[in-house]
Amino acid sequence: MIYLVGLGLYFELPDRIIREIREFERYVDIYTSYVPESIIDRYEAMPADREFLENGIFKVMDRNIAILIPGDPLFATTHSAIYFEAIRRGIRVRVFHNSSIINAISRTGLSPYRFGRVVSVASWVNMGIRSYLDNIEQNRRNGLHTLVLPDPMFRDTDEFFSKVDLGEEIFTLARVGYEDEIIAYGRVYSTKPFAFIVPSELNHYEREFVDILKKHSFLK
Amino acid sequence: MIYLVGLGLYFELPDRIIREIREFERYVDIYTSYVPESIIDRYEAMPADREFLENGIFKVMDRNIAILIPGDPLFATTHSAIYFEAIRRGIRVRVFHNSSIINAISRTGLSPYRFGRVVSVASWVNMGIRSYLDNIEQNRRNGLHTLVLPDPMFRDTDEFFSKVDLGEEIFTLARVGYEDEIIAYGRVYSTKPFAFIVPSELNHYEREFVDILKKHSFLK
Repeated sequence: MIYLVGLGLYFELPDRIIREIREFERYVDIYTSYVPESIIDRYEAMPADREFLENGIFKVMDRNIAILIPGDPLFATTHSAIYFEAIRRGIRVRVFHNSSIINAISRTGLSPYRFGRVVSVASWVNMGIRSYLDNIEQNRRNGLHTLVLPDPMFRDTDEFFSKVDLGEEIFTLARVGYEDEIIAYGRVYSTKPFAFIVPSELNHYEREFVDILKKHSFLK
Repeated sequence: MIYLVGLGLYFELPDRIIREIREFERYVDIYTSYVPESIIDRYEAMPADREFLENGIFKVMDRNIAILIPGDPLFATTHSAIYFEAIRRGIRVRVFHNSSIINAISRTGLSPYRFGRVVSVASWVNMGIRSYLDNIEQNRRNGLHTLVLPDPMFRDTDEFFSKVDLGEEIFTLARVGYEDEIIAYGRVYSTKPFAFIVPSELNHYEREFVDILKKHSFLK
């Protein structure tokens, strides 16, 4: 049985789930997002890198395995591949959903109902891949904001912006759920994990909310 | 201080949050989604109806109040209004994000990266309000799926479909996180909470995933 368990934005689980996963071989996904060492220790888990998540897992998925995944456990393509392959093989699969950066977008003052498709940016972006820009542009043409999820291979925001230009009118969401969480209007320096929002034109309410957040230092 | 606490899809909280909210006057939002009576008891909370969430709260928000909210605590307009008004008044505000129906969309086989804006449908929809259809159509024109969130005033899917036609080619997500969870291709009967996905054209992977889910009864 495969148990895909979201660690959410805070790496915390309800008691029921902690009890349940005791019976499983436990792995923590350290590939699709950043996970502090202390979390791997807390759940007495093994670190699962890209090689394990994209290959190794398929050799051992008949065992009882829990994969603990930062954020929600079924958003990244890596996890979906494990989910669908396990089902295809008739292996029992369970999912525990948890909070993800997509749940935090409203902390910027922007309406969650005014977001278009989510866009990811691969770390090999400078090799001529521009589809993320087309998708941001499509959202903007439709009056919609874009949540941009950078590849976890980018070490920090500086490295990201050395390869990708989202313009200056962006929001930065960095280390959301951590003690040093940053929600900012504009580019700020941060280490992983981080994401950005490229806004479309703000409506009346959004402008008012952004102003409130700024005035009371909820927005850097 | 106002503490907006998401109960997620499972109404379960990590230990840290349970300890923290003991110090607060606790309310459970029974307006924006459906909450079983047992949950209100479990957290020794008071039920918060529409009147309280849209009016009463603003008279008592200088006290230490925790509002426990099904799903994520900052997606619905009702909760955002509380959040921004508290900040405007200089009242301390904290948020604990949690899983929401938006995190479960990939359980249908559809790619979370191919969803356009989320659309809500008010219960007074038959009074000529058609903007939700325009937004679904805009998503579809852009090759994107639409998550449709019905007003919690709709008692069951039958009542919803007596007023709203999303066509037959839809996915139903009903009671996700509950024992009697349903993820279905097509319309099915269910009581609250429920949501729908109006898909755009499925791509190759999505069609394969939908077929796998159907074959192994992960999709009704």
